[in-house]
Amino acid sequence: MKLFPTNKGKHIGQSPGTVTFSGTPQVDEVRVSVTDYDSESLDAKLLDSVEDAFPYRDKPTVSWINVDGLHDDQILTALCSYYGVHPLILEDICNVQHRPKLEEQDDLLFITLKMLTCQEGQKRMHIEQVSFVLGSQFLLSFQERSGDVFEPVRKRIEGNKRRIHNSGSDYLMYALIDTVVDHYYVVLETLGERLEALEDALIAETSETLLREIQSIKKDLSLFRQSVWPLRQVISDLMGEEWDLIRPETQPFWRDVYDHVLQVMDGVDALKEMANGLIDLYRSTLDQKSNDIMKLLTLVATIFIPLTFIAGIYGMNFDPEVSPWNMPELSWPFGYPLAWGVMIVMGLMMVWYFKRKKWL
Amino acid sequence: MKLFPTNKGKHIGQSPGTVTFSGTPQVDEVRVSVTDYDSESLDAKLLDSVEDAFPYRDKPTVSWINVDGLHDDQILTALCSYYGVHPLILEDICNVQHRPKLEEQDDLLFITLKMLTCQEGQKRMHIEQVSFVLGSQFLLSFQERSGDVFEPVRKRIEGNKRRIHNSGSDYLMYALIDTVVDHYYVVLETLGERLEALEDALIAETSETLLREIQSIKKDLSLFRQSVWPLRQVISDLMGEEWDLIRPETQPFWRDVYDHVLQVMDGVDALKEMANGLIDLYRSTLDQKSNDIMKLLTLVATIFIPLTFIAGIYGMNFDPEVSPWNMPELSWPFGYPLAWGVMIVMGLMMVWYFKRKKWL
Amino acid sequence: MKLFPTNKGKHIGQSPGTVTFSGTPQVDEVRVSVTDYDSESLDAKLLDSVEDAFPYRDKPTVSWINVDGLHDDQILTALCSYYGVHPLILEDICNVQHRPKLEEQDDLLFITLKMLTCQEGQKRMHIEQVSFVLGSQFLLSFQERSGDVFEPVRKRIEGNKRRIHNSGSDYLMYALIDTVVDHYYVVLETLGERLEALEDALIAETSETLLREIQSIKKDLSLFRQSVWPLRQVISDLMGEEWDLIRPETQPFWRDVYDHVLQVMDGVDALKEMANGLIDLYRSTLDQKSNDIMKLLTLVATIFIPLTFIAGIYGMNFDPEVSPWNMPELSWPFGYPLAWGVMIVMGLMMVWYFKRKKWL
Amino acid sequence: MKLFPTNKGKHIGQSPGTVTFSGTPQVDEVRVSVTDYDSESLDAKLLDSVEDAFPYRDKPTVSWINVDGLHDDQILTALCSYYGVHPLILEDICNVQHRPKLEEQDDLLFITLKMLTCQEGQKRMHIEQVSFVLGSQFLLSFQERSGDVFEPVRKRIEGNKRRIHNSGSDYLMYALIDTVVDHYYVVLETLGERLEALEDALIAETSETLLREIQSIKKDLSLFRQSVWPLRQVISDLMGEEWDLIRPETQPFWRDVYDHVLQVMDGVDALKEMANGLIDLYRSTLDQKSNDIMKLLTLVATIFIPLTFIAGIYGMNFDPEVSPWNMPELSWPFGYPLAWGVMIVMGLMMVWYFKRKKWL
Amino acid sequence: MKLFPTNKGKHIGQSPGTVTFSGTPQVDEVRVSVTDYDSESLDAKLLDSVEDAFPYRDKPTVSWINVDGLHDDQILTALCSYYGVHPLILEDICNVQHRPKLEEQDDLLFITLKMLTCQEGQKRMHIEQVSFVLGSQFLLSFQERSGDVFEPVRKRIEGNKRRIHNSGSDYLMYALIDTVVDHYYVVLETLGERLEALEDALIAETSETLLREIQSIKKDLSLFRQSVWPLRQVISDLMGEEWDLIRPETQPFWRDVYDHVLQVMDGVDALKEMANGLIDLYRSTLDQKSNDIMKLLTLVATIFIPLTFIAGIYGMNFDPEVSPWNMPELSWPFGYPLAWGVMIVMGLMMVWYFKRKKWL
Repeated sequence: MKLFPTNKGKHIGQSPGTVTFSGTPQVDEVRVSVTDYDSESLDAKLLDSVEDAFPYRDKPTVSWINVDGLHDDQILTALCSYYGVHPLILEDICNVQHRPKLEEQDDLLFITLKMLTCQEGQKRMHIEQVSFVLGSQFLLSFQERSGDVFEPVRKRIEGNKRRIHNSGSDYLMYALIDTVVDHYYVVLETLGERLEALEDALIAETSETLLREIQSIKKDLSLFRQSVWPLRQVISDLMGEEWDLIRPETQPFWRDVYDHVLQVMDGVDALKEMANGLIDLYRSTLDQKSNDIMKLLTLVATIFIPLTFIAGIYGMNFDPEVSPWNMPELSWPFGYPLAWGVMIVMGLMMVWYFKRKKWL
Repeated sequence: MKLFPTNKGKHIGQSPGTVTFSGTPQVDEVRVSVTDYDSESLDAKLLDSVEDAFPYRDKPTVSWINVDGLHDDQILTALCSYYGVHPLILEDICNVQHRPKLEEQDDLLFITLKMLTCQEGQKRMHIEQVSFVLGSQFLLSFQERSGDVFEPVRKRIEGNKRRIHNSGSDYLMYALIDTVVDHYYVVLETLGERLEALEDALIAETSETLLREIQSIKKDLSLFRQSVWPLRQVISDLMGEEWDLIRPETQPFWRDVYDHVLQVMDGVDALKEMANGLIDLYRSTLDQKSNDIMKLLTLVATIFIPLTFIAGIYGMNFDPEVSPWNMPELSWPFGYPLAWGVMIVMGLMMVWYFKRKKWL
Repeated sequence: MKLFPTNKGKHIGQSPGTVTFSGTPQVDEVRVSVTDYDSESLDAKLLDSVEDAFPYRDKPTVSWINVDGLHDDQILTALCSYYGVHPLILEDICNVQHRPKLEEQDDLLFITLKMLTCQEGQKRMHIEQVSFVLGSQFLLSFQERSGDVFEPVRKRIEGNKRRIHNSGSDYLMYALIDTVVDHYYVVLETLGERLEALEDALIAETSETLLREIQSIKKDLSLFRQSVWPLRQVISDLMGEEWDLIRPETQPFWRDVYDHVLQVMDGVDALKEMANGLIDLYRSTLDQKSNDIMKLLTLVATIFIPLTFIAGIYGMNFDPEVSPWNMPELSWPFGYPLAWGVMIVMGLMMVWYFKRKKWL
Repeated sequence: MKLFPTNKGKHIGQSPGTVTFSGTPQVDEVRVSVTDYDSESLDAKLLDSVEDAFPYRDKPTVSWINVDGLHDDQILTALCSYYGVHPLILEDICNVQHRPKLEEQDDLLFITLKMLTCQEGQKRMHIEQVSFVLGSQFLLSFQERSGDVFEPVRKRIEGNKRRIHNSGSDYLMYALIDTVVDHYYVVLETLGERLEALEDALIAETSETLLREIQSIKKDLSLFRQSVWPLRQVISDLMGEEWDLIRPETQPFWRDVYDHVLQVMDGVDALKEMANGLIDLYRSTLDQKSNDIMKLLTLVATIFIPLTFIAGIYGMNFDPEVSPWNMPELSWPFGYPLAWGVMIVMGLMMVWYFKRKKWL
Repeated sequence: MKLFPTNKGKHIGQSPGTVTFSGTPQVDEVRVSVTDYDSESLDAKLLDSVEDAFPYRDKPTVSWINVDGLHDDQILTALCSYYGVHPLILEDICNVQHRPKLEEQDDLLFITLKMLTCQEGQKRMHIEQVSFVLGSQFLLSFQERSGDVFEPVRKRIEGNKRRIHNSGSDYLMYALIDTVVDHYYVVLETLGERLEALEDALIAETSETLLREIQSIKKDLSLFRQSVWPLRQVISDLMGEEWDLIRPETQPFWRDVYDHVLQVMDGVDALKEMANGLIDLYRSTLDQKSNDIMKLLTLVATIFIPLTFIAGIYGMNFDPEVSPWNMPELSWPFGYPLAWGVMIVMGLMMVWYFKRKKWL
């Protein structure tokens, strides 16, 4: 995932509503599954062909049709046209770099948002687009790949949890979106822990690798913000207006999701600040190290360079026999010990000076 | 306390309204106490079982039921269901990483906010969640641990202060929230004094530890802002709208709390700026020190290296007997004093140069 | 293209509505072409004289008159006065440094915006002004030079695509603006890839050239933002109000463009942040290198300077015959190996010290 | 004055409306003076006891009662309760760290704001709280100490200036607040001049003291902003709404004050930016100096170290008598001049290299 | 011109409406000129006394009375009181450090704004205040000095341009303000070109002077922003409301000015960013240079210090006659060439190491 949308440009001037999957296919085959339930019955299966999904449109039960994989135009077009989804919305479903948004179309509600994951082994955060089309008795959901993201919700339906069974398709959509938002916390935690690990690592060493890792997390946080920020508006719009498809009873739940999104945004901002603090710390640590190294160099050089000079003096070959002015020290009986004495005194003075300056 | 919410992710896809305490239990046992009073009577006691708290719901006196400790699901669920608190609100009470918020539910008002403390011995600020459920004749309050936070208010009630006794449960909630906000000032002052101490410490030394401490206070300030900023909105909502449970007489008091929260936010922002200034100062001090060290090195090296070179010259063994061109200086009568003279003049010239450059 | 408007100042105090082309002519000759179509017919040709464009004004078909090149006052004035365009608007068409804006004039709608291109060979982004005047049955478009920007739309018209043929002039304008916005993605991608290339290059070297390139991309991003940001408002105004010339059926398309502009702005902001991160990285890498160099210098100097001093000592010429105190070491049987020993031990100690400090 | 409110915390949980002076007493005794006037008469005196101020409440003339010193609870309580001031407002009057604010209470208007002074000898800006209580025929003003702040207004009243005499208490309050705002300009000018002096000082030297002074001015500017920013809102509220106590005739005057406050805020922001620029300049100057010092060191070292090496070579004692390969140069007739020649050429080459690199 | 208003403080507590010129007089004598015209006649002259300007107030023609120089109280007071200008407005005209603002007074409209110039020889931008008082048939304009700013407009009137002649005083004011705004472009261009020149200069050298120049331009840009930003609001107010004195026909012209002001603000912001980028570049260039110098020092020192040590070794005077362990190398037949060999190999190894590290 890049910080900037990349392959949108491929179809410059293309007619709007053209269905082109803009990502890399993540699965071999597009899979369509259906979960159909009401307060009493439950029917969940993987469909062989997309046509099998058509009868659910007009059933009075809640029908959740989930599509994993977006790279098969035909299946998507067939499904969407049958369910009355506008081509522009289908285009948005397939353009996996779209901002989260909410759109009403006749008697349908379209929501697209980002699923974030941050797997153990991988360095970078993974972003996947998830879209929902909500009808009065059905919900279409679209993912880039089949994952276990929605598994907990499916289990709650299968486990015959009362609330989800008695509620309509809007509650189902809430449950799925809530699951996506729950994942944001996991990613946030992972990124936060990585930053904390880097903070500790900065005590031991200052390598460019550390800096690059901090920068990489900052990029992830930018992506995170970019992915979640518009969702705030989406949920707020869901709460703020009267929608035919959203029953008043689910309002508290949307408010709950809204609070979570706000909290996640707070966390992202705090982590960004923390990352900036780490960069400050990195640079100061580096400066401090340079300083320490320079101190040692200075210490050794300022002590020994003058001493070496004195030693050099008495290594000169001026001829003492020519005149008594030429290096008489060489013939003094205690010349050598005296020279040592001078040198030791000079060295100690330098050390004392360093101590006084608190450099030692 | 971390900059990012951490354990929310544990119940991905969990059904909403599930009561799970998200923090570390701070007390062994959940304690429920009640303070029941009106303008004439007062009854304060620690309850043995949560059921003892039920009769207070319908008493015409003001009943304050305080719960210390949030890790016992059963007690909380029993209490809340009897008092008619929505499961989603109970979930919020237990999720101690929630943003401060205000929510109306039927004839109840729910407020959650953060209690901040900054103890002497401890390095980091401590954050605790405090929640209130306000009914017309009762107030439920929830804390993570039993503390002496609300002690002053309890004393004012026991001390038979007229105002608090004659006022309703909304005034009681105001008094408690006011106490929490008063604590913000204490934390602000502590953090401010730490920063000032660090500023003074920067004169004497520049160690990485200092920088880390500044960064740690910056993190605390971020947390502080994150914890108090949404409270501004909460209080503003309390003031701005007509609430059945908030009597008009208490409006000036809420305005007062609002002013305090604003002032605290001002203080937090000022401290943040101050912390950034300290980081600037730290780095500049470090640069200045590097500069000073380098100056000394340069001084010693540029004075003695040329002198050592001259000494080296006259330590060469060219054979003066081969030709008169080879090192005739060695046989000059005043060769040695002359060499000294040249060296002293060169040294003085360097010193003079340094003085002129103001490096000495 | 500069970050600041430059040649506006040339006509200080000029009467408003004076038509002066403010850019550098990009084409030799101003070319006027017309594409006239309805659901059944199509007529596209390059016009010899501007007067040939006049009959199209009142034709019931959709007439798209495209002008390439803005430096011929006469042609523009003739065309615009015939089509009823206000002189102030004509002035805006020619002032190629105008901010994107939307203006209604009687029964015409005027939109000016920026076309961005980023060609392979060229270092800098290129900005061109594109203006539209929309009438009920015609659309005038003005470009600085003849380019293939609108080619895809022309092809869609010629290819007899149903939608574009059945729609009015407002849909045509949408299609053209959509094409321009599509180009923003291409530029964004190019700039993003350049930044990524620079990020990789920073591993190998830190030259000032790299920094200048980052700065240059930052400047381009500023220009980008400056060029696209007001467009957001323009499209939002188109969507938000009722315009006689914009039919309700095209509303979803404008919303689509609006989403794209928002997404582009997100991308620009993310890239700016990335560029700032690169500058941080650049500076830290430089610091790290300075540090490494200094370490080597310190290592070599601190090891050899003391050793050289010792060698200097035994190079002194104190006369051992004068007294036994003068350099007795020189006559020790194992004096020389001992001196080596001392020197090797000292060197090893320094190396050990360096290792302990983790500088080696 | 500190960047953060400090002694608010002392009365945690205190009952609201408790009158506690939160500052350091600035005067020995609280002084109450009265200036009573209408268009014809004038009566100004210092009162012996606070009770003497009571009769003025109901006089039809404009009565200005000024209190210097806030540390005597009894006087303040007596005065305020007689004049009908709410205890919460009295608490705000005494809490000298309050944000500027405007509050209406029954038929009174309460305004508190900050008086800033910046005295010659003192380093730091001084902040004092000034509060006003406006009634229909009286104005109470409260200062921390008796100062000459309001002297000009008193003189205008005594000087029998027509406008102030014919106007009501609201005009008097305007005149006093205008005086306070006028002082902001003086402080702004003083801070600005200090910054300019520091900018000049940076040419001559870069000491840590300079940096600390810049930081200290930045802190003052933060305080300034914090003190004046909320006043903008206060004045804007005064202008924007209909207040019974503010006659429409004084509206233009309030607009005038509002403009001044905005201008002051502009100035504060500009000075802050200037201070940040100075810090940049400081650091760059320091870097430049390090660079200059390093250049000298490098110059001397790179020239003399190789030369010293050559001198060292010919100071070696290899025995030329053993073989003709051992130091034959020593016996060359022109060995010594040749060595000098090589050394001089090497030195010149280094100098030339430095010149080419523009380091010399 | 300073970043902060300076001489406002001189009249602390002065009665409002006092006319005090707050700048330095720029002209010897205040000059009053009049240009009186309608669609048929034109009368332009310099007036001898201010009283000559009085008859124009009630003439049905458009009368433009221009005052150059603001330091003569009497002339200004006479003129303004005759034309019915409020004393507070006159005060604003004379206070040349006022923010741009728009004020309505009875049947007059008062606008004050800033004229910016940036002359060739001068380093700093020059700011002058220009004020207008618009009546239904007259326009008063006030400048600090007589300049050629309004010359182009005067020429258009004299040149008998139809539009300006047929329009009223509001169009005249538009024409004058448009001229002022046109000058902003010139200043913007000058500052931009200076920045670009500095950017080029940074390639050749990094002196503190360059940095100070960048900072000085940044200050000018701050001033620019401060001067023009409130004008945006002024023009927006002119457009947004119904003013009796502004005829609807001039609305498109004000919109045009508004666009220009926005564009200028965009340019100022872009230049500020560019200036910040230059400071970054400056510092990095400095760092890079330090790095280069350090590299040379390290290269020379690390190569020659070890070699000098070896030369020092064989300069020692251990007595080979005492034992065969003492410096046997000195008597080896090829001792000297061997020593050279070792030294050359060591030197080459260092060079190779440097090459591998890419430091050479």
